[in-house]
Amino acid sequence: MTNVYLAGPDIFIPDALDLGRRKAELCAAHGLRSLYPLDNAVALAAHDASLQIFRGNEAMMNEADAIIANLTPFRGPSADAGTVYELGYMAGRGKLVFGYSNDPANYVERVGRFETLDKRDGMLIGADGLVVEDFDLPDNLMLIHALDLHGAPLITLRKKPADLWRDLTAFEACVKLAAARLRAVAR
Amino acid sequence: MTNVYLAGPDIFIPDALDLGRRKAELCAAHGLRSLYPLDNAVALAAHDASLQIFRGNEAMMNEADAIIANLTPFRGPSADAGTVYELGYMAGRGKLVFGYSNDPANYVERVGRFETLDKRDGMLIGADGLVVEDFDLPDNLMLIHALDLHGAPLITLRKKPADLWRDLTAFEACVKLAAARLRAVAR
Repeated sequence: MTNVYLAGPDIFIPDALDLGRRKAELCAAHGLRSLYPLDNAVALAAHDASLQIFRGNEAMMNEADAIIANLTPFRGPSADAGTVYELGYMAGRGKLVFGYSNDPANYVERVGRFETLDKRDGMLIGADGLVVEDFDLPDNLMLIHALDLHGAPLITLRKKPADLWRDLTAFEACVKLAAARLRAVAR
Repeated sequence: MTNVYLAGPDIFIPDALDLGRRKAELCAAHGLRSLYPLDNAVALAAHDASLQIFRGNEAMMNEADAIIANLTPFRGPSADAGTVYELGYMAGRGKLVFGYSNDPANYVERVGRFETLDKRDGMLIGADGLVVEDFDLPDNLMLIHALDLHGAPLITLRKKPADLWRDLTAFEACVKLAAARLRAVAR
């Protein structure tokens, strides 16, 4: 059985257990076993709860053959930091990396939602005085090209769905793609 | 010679080449050779410039024995996505990972700068309706504990420096720590 680690800030929605079940069902329907952070039982009141969560997630990633990462922007123009860490970790371990985003906007447009951009010497500058990456990519080039070279290009929707955190259209397309690629590898 | 990859959104400041030189000097003073993204010559107008940058950075990471990541929050409450990807990649490859932040605030305080937080059923909820991680850590637990377990704990300052992107006090402390740890490994 092929194991896929499911990463994303959608574990922070109040009904994340339910979402995890829906994601697991979609994976199973395509022959994949999903590993989901909330599958680990952790007592949140424990003094070392965060460390237990880290160890649990890392163990799952080590067990997984691939990652499917929800790279929808989270609390800013970029994907969730925890998810991006996991994407990098899996790429570093030579696993296949897949990702999707429920927000089709490119990075410049995303940054522009939060601040006014300036043009100086032909470069876009953010409110912080720092250059805004302008390659017409949806997020920082390291994430986007990691997918291109270590898995498959980012899957995104033509427009934002009504429910940004619960719509699984892009996720399901990603699962199909991952299943096909993992079957090809297994042959 | 021990090679250290220098990651951080400070490559986006207008005087990033100068900053890179100062960082390289501090590394050299502690016996480390630094690999810095801007050391790769890339024609930004090339049609595949972003891919060239990705390949250059990945090659540098593969060559490096460790990473020193600037995890100062960038365009939101968390560290820069590209930097976090690189931190994960290096941890995944079993390299030593070090990080510093020029912002000592914890994650809850950082999120609170951008939005009003709610308390519901004993949990902190952000404006997006999603739970805010509340472990009194400076950023997402995956980043922070990756440093704890695969390198050394995050180095931070007691207070934000006057120049958030050019102050190298925390960076230098991180270089010293990395040099000591790398010497211990090499023995």
